[in-house]
Parts: sequence; structure tokens; C-alpha cells
Amino acid sequence: MPWWCCRKEINVTGIQTHPLYRLANPGSIVFFGGSNNIGAMGTNILMSLLAMGFEGQVFPVHPKEKIVQGLTAYTSVLDLPITPDLAVMVLPTVLVNPTLEHCGQKGIRNAVVVSGGFKEVGGQGPVLEKQMVEICRRHGITLIGPNCLGVANPHHKLNTTFLPFEGKPGFIGMASQSGSFLTQMFNTMARHHIGFSTAFSVGNSACIDIVDCLDYLGSCPHTKVITLYIEGLVRGRAFVETARAIARQKPIVAIYVGGSATGRKAGSSHTGAMAGPDRLYDGIFRQAGIIRVQSITELLDFAWVLGSLPAPRGRGVVIQTHSGGPGAVAADAVGRAGLELPDLSAKTLEALKPFVPHTGSVANPVDLTFSKNPLDFFDPIPKVLLEDENTAMLMVYFLTPLPVIRRALAMMGVAADRIESEADQMVTQQAQAFGRVFEQAGKPVVGYNWRSTEERFSQVLMESGVPLFGDPQRAARALGALVRYHQWRG
Amino acid sequence: MPWWCCRKEINVTGIQTHPLYRLANPGSIVFFGGSNNIGAMGTNILMSLLAMGFEGQVFPVHPKEKIVQGLTAYTSVLDLPITPDLAVMVLPTVLVNPTLEHCGQKGIRNAVVVSGGFKEVGGQGPVLEKQMVEICRRHGITLIGPNCLGVANPHHKLNTTFLPFEGKPGFIGMASQSGSFLTQMFNTMARHHIGFSTAFSVGNSACIDIVDCLDYLGSCPHTKVITLYIEGLVRGRAFVETARAIARQKPIVAIYVGGSATGRKAGSSHTGAMAGPDRLYDGIFRQAGIIRVQSITELLDFAWVLGSLPAPRGRGVVIQTHSGGPGAVAADAVGRAGLELPDLSAKTLEALKPFVPHTGSVANPVDLTFSKNPLDFFDPIPKVLLEDENTAMLMVYFLTPLPVIRRALAMMGVAADRIESEADQMVTQQAQAFGRVFEQAGKPVVGYNWRSTEERFSQVLMESGVPLFGDPQRAARALGALVRYHQWRG
Repeated sequence: MPWWCCRKEINVTGIQTHPLYRLANPGSIVFFGGSNNIGAMGTNILMSLLAMGFEGQVFPVHPKEKIVQGLTAYTSVLDLPITPDLAVMVLPTVLVNPTLEHCGQKGIRNAVVVSGGFKEVGGQGPVLEKQMVEICRRHGITLIGPNCLGVANPHHKLNTTFLPFEGKPGFIGMASQSGSFLTQMFNTMARHHIGFSTAFSVGNSACIDIVDCLDYLGSCPHTKVITLYIEGLVRGRAFVETARAIARQKPIVAIYVGGSATGRKAGSSHTGAMAGPDRLYDGIFRQAGIIRVQSITELLDFAWVLGSLPAPRGRGVVIQTHSGGPGAVAADAVGRAGLELPDLSAKTLEALKPFVPHTGSVANPVDLTFSKNPLDFFDPIPKVLLEDENTAMLMVYFLTPLPVIRRALAMMGVAADRIESEADQMVTQQAQAFGRVFEQAGKPVVGYNWRSTEERFSQVLMESGVPLFGDPQRAARALGALVRYHQWRG
Repeated sequence: MPWWCCRKEINVTGIQTHPLYRLANPGSIVFFGGSNNIGAMGTNILMSLLAMGFEGQVFPVHPKEKIVQGLTAYTSVLDLPITPDLAVMVLPTVLVNPTLEHCGQKGIRNAVVVSGGFKEVGGQGPVLEKQMVEICRRHGITLIGPNCLGVANPHHKLNTTFLPFEGKPGFIGMASQSGSFLTQMFNTMARHHIGFSTAFSVGNSACIDIVDCLDYLGSCPHTKVITLYIEGLVRGRAFVETARAIARQKPIVAIYVGGSATGRKAGSSHTGAMAGPDRLYDGIFRQAGIIRVQSITELLDFAWVLGSLPAPRGRGVVIQTHSGGPGAVAADAVGRAGLELPDLSAKTLEALKPFVPHTGSVANPVDLTFSKNPLDFFDPIPKVLLEDENTAMLMVYFLTPLPVIRRALAMMGVAADRIESEADQMVTQQAQAFGRVFEQAGKPVVGYNWRSTEERFSQVLMESGVPLFGDPQRAARALGALVRYHQWRG
């Protein structure tokens, strides 16, 4: 057991006193392994760090180069003018421990070791990793890794991962046994207008493990929901205790890939973590109050809804649509997700009357077929539905058929060269109108369709905070998780 | 029972003699309900029909307008210079039967009735629908609808649905009790470079029902896979018999939304179809050899793979990745989908050697971490994996991080204004290289990532025919369905 794991108390008072705070919020960084060779992983990570606009000083250390990525480089960490808060290492395996020793001598107390070649490989790897822990213990270094991508804390403009950060700081915390699910999710999350609060890639967990990161995220004020990617747990008991304490305050969503024989095989060759039977992890998650998901897509879906929507007052979902089939599949998905479709109150039916054409249905799903005024679909119709006492949650089907809008504008006499911008303006207004209803809803609201996330309408809608899913099944499952979480929390 | 349903024999000889052939492949069309008022549904449908470039004559009938959408309009169908093959009606309910009677008198033998207000509503609706069937019987009219969107046959440039067609003719047949899943899927399918062969929206099924359409699609040479959207079946036995006969030749994938109480409620208010318990439909589908899916996304996922990939010779999936986590979740998904991860043969391991860096793993998942030459990932590495005798199927993780490519090009001295086009060219070459491997594979190959379908790399890859999924779970489930189908078919 590494020294770090001996910490028994869970820190819940003030994030700034948390043992991981400085690692995730360093004032300055010494960087090993960056150069001017774009083929090197270290160079890519250094570029991503700099591209994010990290506000503290960054000191590259390089044996030969004088200038690295435009910064003055040093031949040894011992030569630095100050003692940086954090060391990031992307070095050949054999250089890691000697360099770490120098960092300790310099007084550096936090390290990210990206380099692999330790416990996850055979031969001398486990021995080297033991020596690494010994150096950390001796110097009191808080180390994340090896074989990891470190930390992304966009609120602090910190990114020690491979890819440049995209999007904005957000509310989703992550502790992951795969660095890919930090760095390779930047783009995915940015397209959905969600973002990480702070994300940790723990790698081999020589010192800091997923429990420690979970603990940190529990205290982190930016983090509204915590996501975990787990290939196997070592400290099962500490994990359950930490998670249980946090889950009462903020939801935790986890994917475990060691459950199937095939997943176990893949995971163990990746970080050397110990996997166990699927049912064992089901039990661990249940004890800990963790919501389990079956895919990375679902991990983000659930995090989006759990981290941003209010607690539902019941399990009744009202579906708003203008097409029967999309309404029916949503209704079916709602049922399968353990939710209900309440009837609308007499008052709501009355209030809807002016907006619903004779072809429409005011059963639930509310199928408008079309709106007399297309803007009504975005406001006030959803507002009326949200005011219904039986509506705990609202799920809306959004179809924004640009080709139809374009040809309508053309027939209305809009000049050809103005059609694109007018159509753009029209869908932007629609999405913004709905966004305002969403903001004031006080109830969970989600959207769904099968269209591209790149469409202007979808982009504005998501920018307004509305979770928008590529299938009603995903939307319903996420709402189901939201209901179960708040029921469990009580 | 409508007269149409009395047909007992299943037509499997020559599509041109099929009773639905002329309806799906008309030479000329009379259109009721189109005008120059863009607010009218009929106008929108007529515009979509014309926008597709339908090659036969189209005759709008309108009581007042002389020119409709640039075409000479007639005040009555009886005035037309010829007898068109097909009538499309988007008229107020009360006008439908009298107009249909005129069509019969004119000798028209095929009709699409888009108008609603029949069996799906109360009052006089069911009576009017009975009269409609009587008119059809008297004149020998093959009628689809009412309360439907008719037919999209892009191979014939026919589209009687609301939205303009997008993309290309394809291999996916559809018979649907919701018109939305024809017309609102055009965009979704076009983005994935898949398309309908012929798609039917059956609406209330007064004459033609889903069984008849299934039968047609079974004979249709363009159709390689059939998708069904079902809210409830009337002719259960005919459905099972027809489906079973077809399923041995081409796969049938179905979603049934009447199974949950909530779905049943939604479906019955939509087309008035009779729904039944979930288990009943499970039994029907099993007897019929139909593959059941749980979402519209999965309907298209399965159709894509079942309709375009060869039969796998076993259940062994090889996963190719350059990132551990995405490999591990894929491995887990493969296991959960009932598939296996075989070890690679000694011969393959030997052949891979020149391409795998020391950080990589040649277990399965084959985790390359990075390639010495980035193009190797697209060819020849997948080629080597496909040649392995244990590889029945190949699943590849595609990350195309444009920001990394851009900054690499910048560091290599490419001028700022050339970077976008060079990056574009690079990813295009990569996707095309993989596309060529795919074409010659002779084994099922799929890709996955969490990126936008709009990216150039993804677009070129899908254009080459490679099914690309937004999550490995979706990819694995689709491959699982492919294996089960071919095992069942034997």
C-alpha cells in the first residue's frame, strides 16, 4: 500500500486545504519531456498546456535545447530560479525516478508522471514503481501516475493531457483509470456545451488513486456531479466509504469495464488494475450509492442531467412533440425507464386550447402536429405544460428542418442571398425562446432528436443549458437516473 | 378486413408484377392539396416531390389556382389529359372520398392518402374510412393511408413525404406506422451515407398494411435489409408468415413501441393500431425471424450493419485502437454483446512487429498507442489484423484529433493559410486508405468514436461504406445482431 493511501480522514472542509488542491491548482510548473520535436508526446502535452493559457510560470527542462516552445529551457530542475508547485514528466522510464529525486531535492511537492513502463509492464516495471513511491514518501511528494495523463482543471486553465482543451470549464468531475476519457472527451463535451470541473487520470495509482480523486471532487465547489471510469479497484472499502459520504451531496456515476471476461482482459493489460466479477462491482456501487452506466455515452448523458437539472417532484414525464412516432417511441422509452406519463390537468387542457390545431392531441404525449404560430412550440406551450401539477419533468422533441424553413422563406419573397442568415436567425430565436423557458422551469427539462449536434438550433439550445439527446431512449434513461438518485438521497 | 388483405400468396417473382410496384414506381402523379400557400401541408409535400426531380408528369389539382408550384393546375382530376398512375391526396377529410371516387372514375389505380380524420379519430372517422375502402374495392384502387406520408423511393426519385429528401438512394427498406420515421430520418441517414431503398408510411392501413409493404420490400432488389416501426399488428399470422419467408433471404429489424403501458397509450392515439403485451410481440418476432431493437438509433445501427456487411465466419472480434480506455470499453461491449475476443495468431504477431512501438500491446484489443507512421493505422495494420484466421470481425477506434494535426503541420513549417486544407487532405487520405482496406476485407468491419459525424474524416469513412458508431456499445451490439442473424439463417 502506498503511503498516500494510509490517509483515513475524508476532507470535506474547504477545498484549499485538500491534499490534492495544489496538484490540481498549481501556481507554477516544471515540465520534463517537452521539446521542439512535434513527434514527441511530451511536446504535445506541453503545447496543450500552453494553448490553454495557464497563467503561472512554466519551466521546460531539456538536456540540450535552450528554448522549448518559446520558453527558456533549463538543463536541470535544480537550476530553476523558483520551486514550482508541480512537476509534469513525460520522460523515458529510466529517467523518471532520478528526475523525481531531483524534484524532491528542489522542494517540489506535486508530480504528474505521464511516462509508462512501470507496474503495467513486466520485468523491472513493478520494482521501479516501488522505488518511485519510496521517493515520494521520502520527500512528501503527492504524485499522480505513472502511466497517466494527469489533470485537466479548466477553471484553473490547467491541462496536462495530450489534446488541447476545447469548450468551457464545467460542472462534471472525473476520476478515470483511462486518460483517453479526459483528453478525448474535450471535443465531445464542447460540442454539447458541457465541460469538466476537474478531471483526473490516475494511471497506475502508485500514490494517488481513484479514491483520493473522488474525495477531492467531493469537496470541489465547481463539481456538481462526479464520473468514474473504473477498470478495477484496490481499496474497495475506502472507495465505498468515500463514495457514500459524497453521494448524499452530489451524484456519482460510474462505468466499470472489468465485469465481462473480455473487458477484464482488456483492462488488466492497460493499467494492471485488479478486476472482479460484474456482480461484485454491482454490489460495491449499490452500497456506495453510485449510479452505474453501461457505456461512455451514458456516463456523459447521466452526468449532464444529474449535474445540471433540479430534483424532480415525482416520476411523471410530459412529452411534447409535433410528430406521432417520435412521441410514441419517447413514451415507450419513458415506460422502460421506470417513469410515468401522467394525464394533463383540466386547467392545462384549457390553457393549451388556443395553441393546438384540430389535428393535434392533448393526451400525453402532447402531439401538436403543427403550431399555428411556429414560435408557440418553444414558448408558451412548454411553459403551459411545465405549470401542470402532474408534470414532474418535460421531454421535448425538437425537429428543426432547415430545408423547410429555407423554402418557406423563399416563397415568402426573401432574397436568395438573405435566406441562410434569416433561417439562422429564426432557429436561433426559437432555441433562445425555449432556453428562457428552460431557465425558469424549476423542473427537469430535456430535449431529443436524431439530428446533428452541429446544427445551429441544437448548438444554441445546448448553450442555453438544455440537455439534448440523440435518442429519446437516452433522454428517458437519464431522467430515470435523476429520479432514482433523488429518491435514494431522500 | 379490407379487400387488399385477402391476398394470400406471397409474391416473390419479379418486383414489377408486385401489386405495390406501380404505387412505389409511378410514371405520373395527380396531386391534390398542393397550392402556392407555403403554410399548407400539401404544398410542402408537393414541393418535396418536385425537389427530388421526379421524372414523370405531375398534375396539381386545385379548385382556384391556375398555376401551382410552376405547374399547370386542373380544377378536376376528370379534366386531366392522361390517367396518372398515382393520386396523392392532402385534402380536408370531407373531400377525400369524393375525390377518390373521381380518381376511380378516371381509372387511377393507386393512391396515397395523407389526410387524417379517419379511424384514428372518433365520431364519423371510422365510417368514412369504411367508405374509402369500399371505393377502393369498387375501382380496384391500391391505397396507402389514410393518415400517412406515403412512399419514398429515392431510386425512382419519388418522395410523397413532408421533408425534401437528402442523401442518396440506399439499401434500407422501411415499412412504418409512423411517417416521421421516413421523412425525419432523411437527414440522419444522409449524414451517415446510408439511405432508403423504398420506405412506406402505412398510416391507418385501411387497404395496404405493413404486411403488404414487407412483402414488397422482400421482393425489392434494392432492399438489402428491412426495418419496421410497429405500434400494433392486425394481421398477426400473415405478418409472421410473410416475415419468415423473407427473413431467410434478407434480415428484418423491428421496433415495437406498444409493449410498455406508456408506449401503448401513445401508439393507440396515433394510428389506432391494436397493441399487445411486450412478450406477445417478442414471441411474434422470434417466430418470424425478426431482430428486435429497443430504439430508433438501434434500428438504423442494425440495418446499417445487417444490410451492408458480409456474413461473419465466427464470433471473434479483433479491436484495433491507439488508446487503452476506448479499447477496454469496446472489449467490454463485445463481451456483453455475446461476442468473443480471440488471441491473434503467431503469424499475425510477427507481421505486426514492424508497426507496433514498444509501448503498444498486441493482445486483443490491439492497442498501438501510436504508430511510427500515422498512415499505418489505416493501412496496412487493419489489413494484417483482417488476415488473421481468428479474426471474424474487426472493430476500429478512430480518433482524428484535428487540433493535433493542425499544430503538427504548423511546427513542420506549413504556412498558416495552408494548414486547414493540408489537414483536410491528410485526414481524407487516411479515411480513403482505410476505405480501400474495408472494401477488400471480405469480413465485417466497423468503426467507432465519440466525435461529430460532420467531421471530414468521418464523412469520408462513411462515404466509403464503413459503418461508424458514436459508441463501441452500439458497434458491438450491431455486430452481435449480425452474428445472430447469420447463425439463425444457417
